[in-house]
Amino acid sequence: MSVAKAGEFGLIARVTARLPTSPGTLLGPGDDAAVVKAEDGRVVASTDVLVEGRHFRRDWCTAQDVGHRAAAANLADIAAMGATATALLVALCVPPNLDATWAEELADGLGEEAALVGAAVVGGDMSGSPTLTIAVTALGDLRGRAPVVRTGARPGDVVAMCGRVGYAAAGYTVLSRGFRTPKVLVDAYRRPEVPYDAGPEAAELGATAMIDVSDGLLADAGHVARGSGVAIDLRRDAFEVPRQMRDAAYALGVDPYTWVLAGGEDHALVATFPVGVALPPRWRVVGEVREGTGVTADGKPFKGPTGWQHF
Amino acid sequence: MSVAKAGEFGLIARVTARLPTSPGTLLGPGDDAAVVKAEDGRVVASTDVLVEGRHFRRDWCTAQDVGHRAAAANLADIAAMGATATALLVALCVPPNLDATWAEELADGLGEEAALVGAAVVGGDMSGSPTLTIAVTALGDLRGRAPVVRTGARPGDVVAMCGRVGYAAAGYTVLSRGFRTPKVLVDAYRRPEVPYDAGPEAAELGATAMIDVSDGLLADAGHVARGSGVAIDLRRDAFEVPRQMRDAAYALGVDPYTWVLAGGEDHALVATFPVGVALPPRWRVVGEVREGTGVTADGKPFKGPTGWQHF
Repeated sequence: MSVAKAGEFGLIARVTARLPTSPGTLLGPGDDAAVVKAEDGRVVASTDVLVEGRHFRRDWCTAQDVGHRAAAANLADIAAMGATATALLVALCVPPNLDATWAEELADGLGEEAALVGAAVVGGDMSGSPTLTIAVTALGDLRGRAPVVRTGARPGDVVAMCGRVGYAAAGYTVLSRGFRTPKVLVDAYRRPEVPYDAGPEAAELGATAMIDVSDGLLADAGHVARGSGVAIDLRRDAFEVPRQMRDAAYALGVDPYTWVLAGGEDHALVATFPVGVALPPRWRVVGEVREGTGVTADGKPFKGPTGWQHF
Repeated sequence: MSVAKAGEFGLIARVTARLPTSPGTLLGPGDDAAVVKAEDGRVVASTDVLVEGRHFRRDWCTAQDVGHRAAAANLADIAAMGATATALLVALCVPPNLDATWAEELADGLGEEAALVGAAVVGGDMSGSPTLTIAVTALGDLRGRAPVVRTGARPGDVVAMCGRVGYAAAGYTVLSRGFRTPKVLVDAYRRPEVPYDAGPEAAELGATAMIDVSDGLLADAGHVARGSGVAIDLRRDAFEVPRQMRDAAYALGVDPYTWVLAGGEDHALVATFPVGVALPPRWRVVGEVREGTGVTADGKPFKGPTGWQHF
């Protein structure tokens, strides 16, 4: 059945019936607005939008995959503030001939990804549109901690990373060349694996700045460098290129470091810490903060694309 | 300059430079997420999306008008919960050839409308898209009150309304027939005048249910009736049709009650109150809650369109 035939309210009923709730949801979908616990007395909020043909393709990802990706992009932003996500709101614009099942499976993916952090989809809106578009807003709770912003990195800090980089970009390249394997790379593109709880962990450890890698490591480190008025130097040897990525890069004629250093969408967390902080093993030191401006790799500017182009 | 030439980060910088802030904004645009006061310990949140060609036309509304309308649709949802809005987040999808000035003036409209209630635009996202789309999320604070939901109306309650109905629908009809006057109607379509503070006021007065009229009075009263398991009867004579609306209706061959009873987007607030509550004059009694189901006008089903079709 098409979404046009299901109708807005029919489709909303079908979708919301599938959504799990959460203990933090005081009032879920169905009213003018949702009500969510914000026990900290502050709420963290971030919005990300995915546009078909630009951020996803229906022939590359299932609806459920797109739900996971859309949720992950937002939940990672909340984690990168040192907060724990509590809720998602979703604005969905759909071509009238879209199968209603697609919207239902999208909701499944959104709900599943949110549930990984104890959050739930609490509200949203739907409209017809020629362009399939998903705008997600995530809310989060700081649990009494100060937010970890982009502007706090200081010369001498170490730069550490938790999570994967290059996987989603490699998966994207593989798919764009018409291949469907290696599965580990394609799956990473379809459903990022984000170390959400590493965000609050970094805040507890005293991180001075943090960001999630959505545009690419060099680009996102650049946001921290600019925001903090410092330079960041990354060490190439800190980034192990896994065998399957190396093999795929060789087969496709790509420098794998382009994926690792300039590929986004894995949503690894990158944070700066004062020297001497004992970091848990999943945080790898990948560089250092210096006086100056800009981002370098092994002291030199990176040759090649440095991040995602949004327009 | 086109948005493509300005680039995402250039455009974001241009837009955020124009946005006013608010005392409730602890961290505004520019980081992974915003941080907003939620002193109540709960946060109210709602999302609405506007799609070009469906919810607005660039030849009918300035960018600033569209900003006002997009913000109003969301801020009204917060008011309809009995809450006070604190923040907006905006996902903006723009055709690459759109003039950057359009995005800037949109931001002006959003910021101005938000400022009416003491809120501010605290974050957002931008993407290229073939379809100009604006998804807005509003956050709000209940200040210790219980949310006024759609499910609390009881037989015997009075139905009261604060704000205008029919104006935006009349303005839409005028514009769609190629006219630009009467100005009062066209302006009402372009920039709704929403009695935001009447939402918390109704909550204080003991409203048992509340909704904002976005789809049309009959349709939105229907949401309350269904949610509460009651019938609602509206009195036609409670709705004064102003002279300019009557004249326009006559000239265009339209029953003005179609605008008044089925036209949305003025975002009047409709609430149910226990009998005997002394209502301030801006709240007009327009009907009553009965045992049963459905919405009637003067005891009879309304003949004609009852509300906005979303697909």
